[in-house]
Order: sequence, then C-alpha cells, then structure tokens
Amino acid sequence: MTIKDARTPASAQNATSGATSGSVNSSSNGEAGKSIGWHKGYVEGSRPDLRVPVRQVHLTNGQSVALYDTSGPYTDPLVETDVRRGLPPLRENWITARGDTEEYAGRPVRPEDDGIKHTSPRGGLRNLDAVFPGRPRQPRRSRDGEAVTQLAYARRGEITPEMEYVAIRENVSPEVVREEIAAGRAVLPANVNHPEIEPMIIGKRFLVKVNANIGNSAVTSSIEEEVEKMAWATRWGADTVMDLSTGRNIHTTREWVLRNSPVPIGTVPLYQALEKVEGRAEELTWEIYKDTVIEQAEQGVDYMTVHAGVRLPFVPLTAGRKTGIVSRGGSIMAAWCLAHHKESFLYENFEELCEILAAYDVTYSLGDGLRPGSIADANDEAQFAELRTLGELNRIARRFHVQTMIEGPGHVPMHKIKENIDLQQEICDEAPFYTLGPLTTDVAPAYDHITSGIGAAMIAWWGTAMLCYVTPKEHLGLPNRDDVKTGVITYKIAAHAADLAKGHPGAQDWDNALSDARFEFRWEDQFNLALDPDTAREFHDETLPAEPAKTAHFCSMCGPKFCSMKISHSITERFGGAAVEGASPEDIAEGMLQKSKEFAAGGNRVYLPIAD
Amino acid sequence: MTIKDARTPASAQNATSGATSGSVNSSSNGEAGKSIGWHKGYVEGSRPDLRVPVRQVHLTNGQSVALYDTSGPYTDPLVETDVRRGLPPLRENWITARGDTEEYAGRPVRPEDDGIKHTSPRGGLRNLDAVFPGRPRQPRRSRDGEAVTQLAYARRGEITPEMEYVAIRENVSPEVVREEIAAGRAVLPANVNHPEIEPMIIGKRFLVKVNANIGNSAVTSSIEEEVEKMAWATRWGADTVMDLSTGRNIHTTREWVLRNSPVPIGTVPLYQALEKVEGRAEELTWEIYKDTVIEQAEQGVDYMTVHAGVRLPFVPLTAGRKTGIVSRGGSIMAAWCLAHHKESFLYENFEELCEILAAYDVTYSLGDGLRPGSIADANDEAQFAELRTLGELNRIARRFHVQTMIEGPGHVPMHKIKENIDLQQEICDEAPFYTLGPLTTDVAPAYDHITSGIGAAMIAWWGTAMLCYVTPKEHLGLPNRDDVKTGVITYKIAAHAADLAKGHPGAQDWDNALSDARFEFRWEDQFNLALDPDTAREFHDETLPAEPAKTAHFCSMCGPKFCSMKISHSITERFGGAAVEGASPEDIAEGMLQKSKEFAAGGNRVYLPIAD
Repeated sequence: MTIKDARTPASAQNATSGATSGSVNSSSNGEAGKSIGWHKGYVEGSRPDLRVPVRQVHLTNGQSVALYDTSGPYTDPLVETDVRRGLPPLRENWITARGDTEEYAGRPVRPEDDGIKHTSPRGGLRNLDAVFPGRPRQPRRSRDGEAVTQLAYARRGEITPEMEYVAIRENVSPEVVREEIAAGRAVLPANVNHPEIEPMIIGKRFLVKVNANIGNSAVTSSIEEEVEKMAWATRWGADTVMDLSTGRNIHTTREWVLRNSPVPIGTVPLYQALEKVEGRAEELTWEIYKDTVIEQAEQGVDYMTVHAGVRLPFVPLTAGRKTGIVSRGGSIMAAWCLAHHKESFLYENFEELCEILAAYDVTYSLGDGLRPGSIADANDEAQFAELRTLGELNRIARRFHVQTMIEGPGHVPMHKIKENIDLQQEICDEAPFYTLGPLTTDVAPAYDHITSGIGAAMIAWWGTAMLCYVTPKEHLGLPNRDDVKTGVITYKIAAHAADLAKGHPGAQDWDNALSDARFEFRWEDQFNLALDPDTAREFHDETLPAEPAKTAHFCSMCGPKFCSMKISHSITERFGGAAVEGASPEDIAEGMLQKSKEFAAGGNRVYLPIAD
Repeated sequence: MTIKDARTPASAQNATSGATSGSVNSSSNGEAGKSIGWHKGYVEGSRPDLRVPVRQVHLTNGQSVALYDTSGPYTDPLVETDVRRGLPPLRENWITARGDTEEYAGRPVRPEDDGIKHTSPRGGLRNLDAVFPGRPRQPRRSRDGEAVTQLAYARRGEITPEMEYVAIRENVSPEVVREEIAAGRAVLPANVNHPEIEPMIIGKRFLVKVNANIGNSAVTSSIEEEVEKMAWATRWGADTVMDLSTGRNIHTTREWVLRNSPVPIGTVPLYQALEKVEGRAEELTWEIYKDTVIEQAEQGVDYMTVHAGVRLPFVPLTAGRKTGIVSRGGSIMAAWCLAHHKESFLYENFEELCEILAAYDVTYSLGDGLRPGSIADANDEAQFAELRTLGELNRIARRFHVQTMIEGPGHVPMHKIKENIDLQQEICDEAPFYTLGPLTTDVAPAYDHITSGIGAAMIAWWGTAMLCYVTPKEHLGLPNRDDVKTGVITYKIAAHAADLAKGHPGAQDWDNALSDARFEFRWEDQFNLALDPDTAREFHDETLPAEPAKTAHFCSMCGPKFCSMKISHSITERFGGAAVEGASPEDIAEGMLQKSKEFAAGGNRVYLPIAD
C-alpha cells in the first residue's frame, strides 16, 4: 500500500525563505526547469537532526514564501515512504539522549484488543510484530521517579529539541515556548513511544491548530482507509489527528496510523474499553479502562480524551435538555454512573491515571461529555458544572506534570460563544481550550462544516488554541476522503482568520502575498499560494480554460474589456503610493490636476496593459 | 422554456401552521396518501388577495412547522408558471388602487440598450413586445408631485398592503414595519413597475436577508441561464437577486428576469451605461447614466447600486493600497473623475437622481466603490471617507422620500468587522447596512463563500440587515448552478445564525424542531426541516442507504451497538425533565438512588429501543 495522491512539487529549484528565519535546505526532485510552484524546504535548527519542514512557494516575481507544513515526509520526494515500515523515528535520539526513559517488555497484545471475542475460535494477534510488520520495537516509559513530560522539562528550565522545533515552526523564541508550556498555557503532545512526529504546539500564543477525526466504526471502513485518511488530512493542514475507531481491529488500525503519522495522534480510550466489554457500559471497570490506557500509551498515542468530568450528580442536570447527552464518552460514563449509582471511576481514580499518563508523556484532553448538542442546550448548568470539574482536574494533572488541554462545545449560538472561552480560561487557569466548532445553528445538516466554521473562527479569535474539525457529514454519516478535505480546509480558514484577528506575528504575510499576486494578475502565484491550489486552479479553468488566460490581465468576472484592477493600476502608477502619504490636501489637489492632464494626454485609457 | 427542478412537494395533505399566525391555506397536488414532507401553504391577511407563502413542513409526529418561503409560485403545484408570460402581477391592484401613479408611453427601447452597436447592420429591438413576449405593459410612474414610495406612505402613517404582507412574513405587527420604514431603519424595495414581487423587508429589526448575484458577462452565459439562476437562487432562499449582467442582451435579460422574479431585483445601472459607451469610462455622461436609470426603473428594477460616494478627492487615497479599487463601479467612477479632473457626476447630480428614483419607488443601495479588496486595505481612510459621504447622501435621499440602504465591505479581518457596522449605523442614521461578506482572509480562493460566511454571520449579528452572497467561484470565475446554491445556502446559514444571536422572535423554533427530530431519530423530519433536504438525505444514504435506516434509532457514527442519544433517552425517561427542575440536591440524590435501582432491575440496559 502506498499513500496516493501525495502532492508532487511542481518545482524543484532551490530558493531561500522570505517568511521563516533560519537557513532553508531544499529537497529537489530533479526537474530543474520550472521555477514556478512549490517544494518542500527545511529550516535547520541548532543541530543537524533538527530540520523543520516548510512549504516553500516560489513566485513568478522571483520571491518565495514559506508556509507552515503539516504534511510530513509524504510530500518530500527525497524521502521514500512505505506504510509497512512506517515513518523514520525523527525524535528517537532526542528521547534516548535524555536518559530518563527505558524500554520494557510491555503489556501483551490480546485478541480482544482488536475487538475479537474472548471465545473467538480464530484466536488472535499475539505480538506487535504481527500487528505491524515494520521495525520491531518495545514500548518505552519513564525510569522510576523521573518526570519525562515536556511540562516537567519546561518547569525546570530545559529547552528540549521539541521546544526548539516548534519555536522555529512558530517564528518565536524557544524561551517563549518553554514559558508557555511551563505555565500550562500550551501543550506539546509527544508520547515517548511516538518518535515519528514532527513536534507542534497548542496554545493561545501560537498559531491556531486544527484536529481532524478519522476512525472506522462498527458499520463501515478499513485499516487502509484510515491510514490514508490520516495522511490525506495532514496533507491539507491537519495539525493533529484523532483516531476514533470503534469497530473491529481498533488496536491494529491505531498501530498503523501511529507508525505512519507525522502529527500527534489523539484517542478516546473509553471507546476501546467499551468494545472490550461488548458494548455493556455497566460492565466497564477501572481495571479494564486502565489497561486500555496503558495499551494505547505503549503504542504511542499522544493525547487522550478523558471524560472524568461527567460526575454522578451532574447526570440528572441533563434530563430536562432538548438533546440530552450527545457526547459518546459522556453518555457511556453517565450510563455507568447510573447503573451503579456510584461516582465515575474516572473521577475517583484520576490521580492514578495521572501517574500513568506522566510515565509516557501522554497529554490529557479533558473531555466535555456534557457539551450541548443543540442551540437550546447551550451554556446550561450541566455544561458549566462539568467545566468547573475540569478546572479542578486540570490542577491535579499539573501536580503530576501531565500536560493538559480542555475540550469545549458543541452547539452554541454566536452570542453565547464568548462566555465559553472566558469561563474556561478563568476556571482552567488558561489551559489550552480545544473546541468542536461550535455549531452556530442546528438547521443545516450537510453543511455543519460551515455552521461550525463560523463559531470556530470566533472562539479561536477569542483564545481557543485548537479546533476540532466538523465535516459536511456530521450528524448524517461517515466522512469520506472529500469530506475530510472539506472539513480540514474549512477549519484552516477558521484558524487562519483567527490568527489574523489575534495579530499573530507574520500571519498576514500570507494574505499579503496572495493579494499582491491577485492585484498583479499573477494567476499561477495566486493558485500556488492558495490553501487549496488544486481547486482554485480548477475553478478558474472552468470558465477560462485556455493556458493564456492564466497570464491574462483580466478575469472572467469583467472580461478583458473593463477591469477594475486595471484601472486601479493606472491610478497607483500615476499617483504613486508613497507620494500621497504625508502630502497636504492642496499638494494632492495640485498633483491630481497635473496627473489628470497627463492622463488625458495619454489617451484617457484606463485599462492599459499593466506589466507588458 | 420551463423552470427545471422546482421542488415538488413530497406531501399534499392540508395542515395547520404551528409557527406562523393567521390561517393557512394549502395547495395540494392531489397525492393525498403521504403525510410526511412539506407543501406550499399561505397565511391570509386582511384581504383575500393578501396571501403570504410559507413552506409548511409536516412532521411524522403530527406537528407541522411553517418556514419563511422565498421560492415564489414555482413551488406551488396549483400555479401554472410560464416564463414567457411571467408571474402573475400580485401587487397590481394594490398599486393602481392607490391612484397616485399613472401609465405613460415610456422611453423607447433602443438597440444599444442591449449592447448592440449604433452602427450594427442588424438593427435592433424597438419595443417591449419584442423584448418580452408576455403580457404587454406600459411603464408607470408617480403622478405629478405625488410621493409614491413606501417611505412616504410610512411617514404619513399609512400601512400599505406591502407592509401588512411583510408583517405576516416576519411575525411582527404591521405598525412595527411602518415605524421602521418611516425611521429609515428598514426598506421595502418595491418598484411600481415590478408588481410580480412578494414583498419583503430589509432592516435590523427583521430577519437577516440574503442577496444572490446573477448576470451574464462579456465572456459567457445566456438569458435562459440567468432566468433559471434567479429562480434557482430563490428556491434555496435568496431574498433578493441582483442582475449584474455586463455583456450582450442586458436589457432583454433584465426584462425576462424581472417578469419572472418573485423577489426584488437589484442592478448597478453604471454597468449598462458603460456598455453604451463601449467601455470608455471617460465618455460616460450624466445624461447617458440618467437615461439608463430611467430605462431600468421603467422595467421594474427595485433597487439600484449607485456609487455616488466615490468622490474626486478620495481617489488618491487608494494609491497606496495593496489592491487599489476592486469595486467595478468604484473603478469606473474613479477613472471618470481622473479623466476629467472633475467631481463625480453621480455626486453632483444626486438630487436629480433622487427625484427619478422617487417617481418609481426605486430604493437606493449606496455603493461602496472604495471597499477594501484585501485584508491589508481594511478600514482605511479611503473606505471611511466614502462612508462619511454615503451618510451625507442618505440624508439627501430621505428628503426626497427615497428608501435607502448602504453597502459595505469587502475584505475585513474579524477584529475590524465591528467598527464597520458601528460606524455605518452612526454615520448613516441607522439606514440598513448591506454587506458583501466580509471575507475574513485572502488565502482561500475557491472557498470564499466560507471565508466570507464567517464575516457575514458576525456582521449580521451586530446589525447588518442584508448579506450579499459570495460563491465558491469568487475571484476565479463565473458561478454555475451549483455555486449559486452553495453560496445561497452558506449565506442562509450566516443569516439564521445571526437571527439566533440577535434573539429574533421565533428564530430558534426552527432549530428546536430540527433538534427534537434529531434526538428522536425522526430522520425524515430531520431531512425535511433541513436548509437543504436533498443533500442531507443524500449524505445519510451514502453511508446507510437502506430504507429501514431512515427509521433506525441509530446512525452510522456509533452504529446500532452503542448510541449516545439512546442513553440520553433512558436518562430523560428515568428522571423526567420536569421532575428535576426546582428539586433540591437531596431530592435529586434520593431520586437518583431510586432510579438507579430501577435501572438495575430493568437489566441495566442503556440502549433500549426508545419509541417502540
């Protein structure tokens, strides 16, 4: 199996970066004839094995723009990838060099890990070699008593290679990264058993991130599809991927996804635990859950959604709701609490869970199991009671040096969104907020990427650090390849719109480069700088397919006869941008009269060709 | 030619409205067997010829929901439509009964009105009969000195049938409608020569409206396509349509669109005027422009974009911009001002223009010719200098009883959006704001319906009355049928999200009905209530195509084995919504213990079938 449709760079020439600091090395695919397009570049850090990927876009005016790149080695023609061997373990030396972790035999893999019944005559997989044919590996965890999380390192003043890596990616100093992690305002999800990832950071001082969900279900889909969906999502800009599989082969699917993922992988261990008790929530136990968490931590899951805030006394608060509990994890825990009339085993055993997560540097994503599932239920007592509990759990997690983010809603009308982020930041000591949308109306199934993209942009502007995407299939079915792409692109738009509104340093450079290209009719540059170059090019060609139209100084809206951009050019040319600044109204009036005469003398033509 | 794909009601049974006041009459298509689906209903007003259409959705639980309906007679199987004859002139009797207008011979139609050159050997069309084969008509205008605008009527305390009509549509009292129009906070665009429209209102106290642009261009498309695009756009919820044609057959295309449109039609007369001088902006004159305005007013254009705010001294303010002037009308006027070094003829002759518009009750849409075309240019001096001029012009228009709205940007990052609506409301005495997006980033060509849908939702929440849609083809090409639909749906989402955030009375009823259907697994109801039932159904069926899946109590996300909605149902059932409200924590704890025992006694099953 190979990853299909990985973007092949249209260009291969070397170029130096305009927007990213550091020196850029280039991967070349040998087609040195074309200078238009883009290629995979790398910014080198303080050591040769610290190379941060960028998407280097080459413009027809000789400049180049470096864009944040989540697509991993798949878009580097110099790296041969093979999903059976997995990605190169980029961080392995960094992890081993720290000397604070050790390999160990690990928990044996059991048939039921893959949803195969205890009584199944087929037996099952016995070891990881069978699960994944690639490089044999043993799991790794902290040596006795060692604190091996990025939070622990940051607190004691250490700047890890991971921190330097994300500092280069974000164009900030490594010290800012360390400070934000130390303060709990940012997380750097990086399980010691997932050396393949290219480190990234989630926090409100950094670029807004986007998560894409994948996962098979009891109803449909295969392992291959899930691995391909993961690579596909990162190609379009997913910063993390959650594997929410619930059907057969959960363990094996996850292993394949992890070994091939350049981005952090998140899961909801409760889903797999429930499979192990064949869907009977009341049969769940702390032991089964704990065993599942260890199983997944050993595989390398970088962050886990834990619904420990769904407490017994909160369950009745949902009874008067329009749509009750819509979180799958939330409803499982509510059912368990009800069945036993006991406090949640996740809440009761939270400290022990912290110890486990700390040993692998798994990051908490404290789940919002009582999030509203409809406009009517937004910001109600059930939701905020849980949020207060998450604040309490966040403080416990910090005692154990476990990195923590907090999940948020859901369905929320626009005027109630700000309260969510403000309360979360206050209650959870500014821990990163990670929200699903929110969806700003319930009335548009099939367009919930849009209903939620609106809410996502707003809540990210106000401080949410990561957005969980929603695809057009939300509420209706399982997303296919196109849905995944549409979801990711929509959420990249929301995230970038928020980066602009937050005034993130350098965020507007991208918009400026694209708008310059647009104003100067550099069509190819406009396509190559677009979030989705393929679709932009395709849409242009639909109306004006001929090759000359891509260098034409007009578009299909006004046609060649009268184009507003052309008129603007003649204005800019005649008055000059700089000449106007600081001039008095009289100067301008005088200058205009002069220019007007020149304009008339030049034949009064306002739609002269611009650059030729 | 017939309008294709008009939605055929899936149902034909009579039903009474739940959400709209007044008695509802139903059109039946005779298939009386099915009670699920929807049909065209009418709410009757104070007179038999005042019947307000609603989309009456019939739910499987016996209830029905009435939704705002813009689709016109095309979705009523009892009305036979024929685009060659045009729609029935709904308002004709209302207009003639007022006795303040008269028919007159009208301006002769000339070949150049259709872009046919003066020297063309083909000659051209000589009268309206040739232009439009339907019902012969003469244009109508006010009798000497009569003020025939809805603003004039509202100011003198009259509630016109048009006002009553929109009051029923909006679920408010006719007096509120009259007051808002009288104050200039709302407009009711309704040219006396466009009797075919179903009246609608644009103002911040009312539902947020959506405009869809259509129009052929010099490059592509035909008359038939434009008429079909108009009907298609209204079918999905467009409240008004702007015909922005610039190519051949402008006059004839507009005639066909007007005669067949159930919604108000807007234009930019400057586009046609420019065609008459063969694209040479400097050859434009006030006389040519005025003649074009009269030509279009006689045809029945309901509102006209007039770029009278692009004044000579503002032109140099755009020279330092990243993307100069991007408004086509703005650039035409800037070119004219430059060529002659004179103040804009639109600004200079604004009072005379008011007299013309007043005679037909054409509404002004004062254009923002200097709107920003990139994030970099947002909220700059050029933009706000023009806005201040629009405020001045708005006060002049009011003196002439001309209804007026103000156009707004454009490309604006999220943190600069609110300043736009706040300034506009202050400067323009709360005249309705009508904005294009705004687009919140420049980097996503092919997805500008989404970049702008985000900004549109926000600015509408803050007070914008009408949103001009943006399609996925923006910046790239001409929208086709699918693009028009995607643009309208995206903007209906933005508008409804804003209605919710503004707390518009009754807006949430729609969300509640859909969420109830979702929680109760009434799939067919969920589809029929959706903004786009066809796509919602299609997406569901892609994963679970079988007919039984549409009555299944689960979906493809969790599958039949474990569904959060089912758990929630068992919680709601066991605790009861009402029982919890007002109960003390002890009561709840006691109740829970009891319920927990019942739950265990019932077999601890949390995923019992709900309704069967």
